[in-house]
Amino acid sequence: MLSTKQKNNALTAHATNSKGQRLSPIRLLDYTHGKIDEEALAALAGQSILNPRQFDRRTVVAIAQLAALLESRNVEMDKPLDGKIAITAFFEASTRTRLSFESAVLRLDGKVLSVPDGQVTGIAKGESLADIGEMFNTYGDVVIMRHPDTDCLDEISKNLERPLINAGNGSGHHPTQALIDWYALLKWRPELCSPICPEEKKVHLGIIGTPGSMRAVKSFVRLALMFTGAVKKITLISELADPVGLDLTEPIEESPIPIEITNDAQEVLSQLDVVYVNSIAFLGDSYRNLDARYKLDASSNLKPDAVILHPLARNDELSEDLDETDHNLYFAQAAGAVFVRQAVLVAVLDRMSALGLG
Amino acid sequence: MLSTKQKNNALTAHATNSKGQRLSPIRLLDYTHGKIDEEALAALAGQSILNPRQFDRRTVVAIAQLAALLESRNVEMDKPLDGKIAITAFFEASTRTRLSFESAVLRLDGKVLSVPDGQVTGIAKGESLADIGEMFNTYGDVVIMRHPDTDCLDEISKNLERPLINAGNGSGHHPTQALIDWYALLKWRPELCSPICPEEKKVHLGIIGTPGSMRAVKSFVRLALMFTGAVKKITLISELADPVGLDLTEPIEESPIPIEITNDAQEVLSQLDVVYVNSIAFLGDSYRNLDARYKLDASSNLKPDAVILHPLARNDELSEDLDETDHNLYFAQAAGAVFVRQAVLVAVLDRMSALGLG
Amino acid sequence: MLSTKQKNNALTAHATNSKGQRLSPIRLLDYTHGKIDEEALAALAGQSILNPRQFDRRTVVAIAQLAALLESRNVEMDKPLDGKIAITAFFEASTRTRLSFESAVLRLDGKVLSVPDGQVTGIAKGESLADIGEMFNTYGDVVIMRHPDTDCLDEISKNLERPLINAGNGSGHHPTQALIDWYALLKWRPELCSPICPEEKKVHLGIIGTPGSMRAVKSFVRLALMFTGAVKKITLISELADPVGLDLTEPIEESPIPIEITNDAQEVLSQLDVVYVNSIAFLGDSYRNLDARYKLDASSNLKPDAVILHPLARNDELSEDLDETDHNLYFAQAAGAVFVRQAVLVAVLDRMSALGLG
Repeated sequence: MLSTKQKNNALTAHATNSKGQRLSPIRLLDYTHGKIDEEALAALAGQSILNPRQFDRRTVVAIAQLAALLESRNVEMDKPLDGKIAITAFFEASTRTRLSFESAVLRLDGKVLSVPDGQVTGIAKGESLADIGEMFNTYGDVVIMRHPDTDCLDEISKNLERPLINAGNGSGHHPTQALIDWYALLKWRPELCSPICPEEKKVHLGIIGTPGSMRAVKSFVRLALMFTGAVKKITLISELADPVGLDLTEPIEESPIPIEITNDAQEVLSQLDVVYVNSIAFLGDSYRNLDARYKLDASSNLKPDAVILHPLARNDELSEDLDETDHNLYFAQAAGAVFVRQAVLVAVLDRMSALGLG
Repeated sequence: MLSTKQKNNALTAHATNSKGQRLSPIRLLDYTHGKIDEEALAALAGQSILNPRQFDRRTVVAIAQLAALLESRNVEMDKPLDGKIAITAFFEASTRTRLSFESAVLRLDGKVLSVPDGQVTGIAKGESLADIGEMFNTYGDVVIMRHPDTDCLDEISKNLERPLINAGNGSGHHPTQALIDWYALLKWRPELCSPICPEEKKVHLGIIGTPGSMRAVKSFVRLALMFTGAVKKITLISELADPVGLDLTEPIEESPIPIEITNDAQEVLSQLDVVYVNSIAFLGDSYRNLDARYKLDASSNLKPDAVILHPLARNDELSEDLDETDHNLYFAQAAGAVFVRQAVLVAVLDRMSALGLG
Repeated sequence: MLSTKQKNNALTAHATNSKGQRLSPIRLLDYTHGKIDEEALAALAGQSILNPRQFDRRTVVAIAQLAALLESRNVEMDKPLDGKIAITAFFEASTRTRLSFESAVLRLDGKVLSVPDGQVTGIAKGESLADIGEMFNTYGDVVIMRHPDTDCLDEISKNLERPLINAGNGSGHHPTQALIDWYALLKWRPELCSPICPEEKKVHLGIIGTPGSMRAVKSFVRLALMFTGAVKKITLISELADPVGLDLTEPIEESPIPIEITNDAQEVLSQLDVVYVNSIAFLGDSYRNLDARYKLDASSNLKPDAVILHPLARNDELSEDLDETDHNLYFAQAAGAVFVRQAVLVAVLDRMSALGLG
């Protein structure tokens, strides 16, 4: 008797990218024999997602597994977020990230209260984030916030009693973006999930950008440092003498993964298995597109099977002539975003049971 | 067979404030033995809510009773606003008020068409409010409008045939905010509902602010004047010689409640049972934060059991060091907002029957 | 057992205009004996709606028939857009058009991801429309876009694999507005549907405005040229020597319908059966309200039974003193907008079966 509804939804599942490598969630699920680390996910119930340091490798893999399940199954019928309201509070506007979260919520039958551009709203009257947090307690069940101020998380948490998902806080972090990046890598090469990955499957990561001032890059590296059995080396390629920044100094020093810093992209490019590129740095309270000294295009000296990640939006640093190549993992990376955000929301809102899990 | 859904919703009901006094809707319902003045609510069906002068004490109490019912019961299952579309047309942006209305609608299974910041939209092309009203007839079932222009209500009503809820019109009124204020007071002291409140339960209200230029304050006072058996005195505390303004002059003159005006807060503060504070005045077409000459903080000379109301957003006039005290009724006041707006929408859209009422 | 729901929805169907002529969808349906050209509609499944030249008369009539069915029936119960997400991407803000589309989606139980003002969002970071199109593939099922740049359609289509509905592209086209205009005309005089309309029912169309720089006017004329058996003459009234513009030159030259151009409105006004007025021209990247040299008001020398169309928003060119007259077809025209957009969405998203069609 569900045929109409199923037919209705049939078109919408399994969204995929238009160009570049396509990544199957099935390979990732098969690698762990369809098992999902429900214990690791259950620990996220009611938790805020603020900073990648709160995760460990096991949790990152568990979220990727749940995302793969959501990507491979048609779960709208389960309505896992039915009755839940997510507040997308974008005090710094971002079409892409906001819609990605809102699509995640709507596809699972949740509802959305949207603040598309908080800078023009109540803030102009001087309302504090702490008071806004108090309001949000009565308006919704989870708050997804982007804010230009790195300190915003402490401020809103003074009164907020709902889980908070950090969708970018100034030059701070962007934890769900990093989960999306790793979801792409784990679908691409499921062996990276393993605590001890076979030697020939280990990857040399190169990062073009400055983690110190780029929150997405910083969060990506923070997760990379957890994959000690899978990442054989990290090379930071930056025009700055010290691109690392305060937050990562200690984690990098303590990591068994060798980290090198260079300003010569040409020298290392041909050695990299994964190239992570970004160009948008957060400086004070505004964006700046860094000089694209390290522009990638189809003529770049890449290993034949090297893959490129980019959190997008891009500028000159990543040429469109790479889009049609197999180096392009960034479109597949983007195509996984909604499912990762769904996984995070299902775990945080304790709705695993609606999927027959937990 | 509804267990999954019920479990799903269980988390979301009964939102409450993080700090300060918490107010139970049950006490208010018990005071009237669970009876709700359905006749008073039925009279609101299809009506616009424009100005508090359209209410009387009985209607204010009836709305508070319905809000209390909605706050104490898990009514999502009844889907009282199913099939209804509310248009939130904020031609003056306000995160807080807009989300409060939208949350009210979504929680009752209605749908929302949102204009988060009308100043950047069609108006730029010179479209008149009258023509916008004509459009709204076909787009939704109720229009919730905030607008910087005090005359906006007449203008949009030229063609609009749907109920209109005034969510703030320039220096005019903000009737649902005043209903929210009184909902907090009636939960706090249910005896205030009575036409003749026992003498020891009557309250001396102090208002720090200028009703003449502050729409929320003006609307609050307008309702206060209806509670002749409950309010023993009103003291307006303002730096202005005449803070009353045109709209309230006659109602105040005709009221049996003694009204006094002072610019010396210290003198009267210790006598007040309820202190209503606000700082945002509407001057011409812009906001101004008035000088906080009358700043309240934990060292203010308040009666031990005095309570403070504030429509929020606040500035310096109300110190955060009061948040943790029992003087803080303003967080409980804010926590009731969604339920009052739900009550108004259910009554105006004639959906009492969905709750088994009317 | 559906009585509650039906009662619930009963209020909301059959929206109509507050003033001017009211148009019944029943007359249009009766004219074709309740038959709907399902074949013509089926051909739209999965298609983008970019430019009126992609239509023919038969398709325009079929869309009008489906709109009339949707306007005359209470179809919310069929939930034809259940499980579908529409992205309303307004990179040029427009309250009216955005809400019209969003209302169409919500009334049919679809969901909406809204970009109310794209100019303040991600674009600021330099994201290309092509990359945004790639993102949209995973966020929703259909994209409704308005953009100030005439070339935007090619750009976003580079990667977008979902149907795209053009809601206005710079000085390009606005195809759904033209369908709305014709829906009003076909309801007003159903005989215009016919390939060969009786002579006494044929219309002389006058257009006050410059199709070359006014996208809505241009799209309206483009459709008018398809109704060769119904339109006996088109008169363009413009202050410009060549108001036609590049896009329409060839279609006008090839059309059997006589077209004349004049700058003397007074001379021809009294001969027109239908007067189409607009005042907003798109010049480069901004709007301009053209001089209202050809202002219409209640004293204009109109034929007694002439009707006026206007896509609204209006300025001085169309006086409010016409609103109460039977010349006012523009309010009825506006009242049909939601139903035409519903028809387009149902056809494009291949959901005719939910209505028992196709």
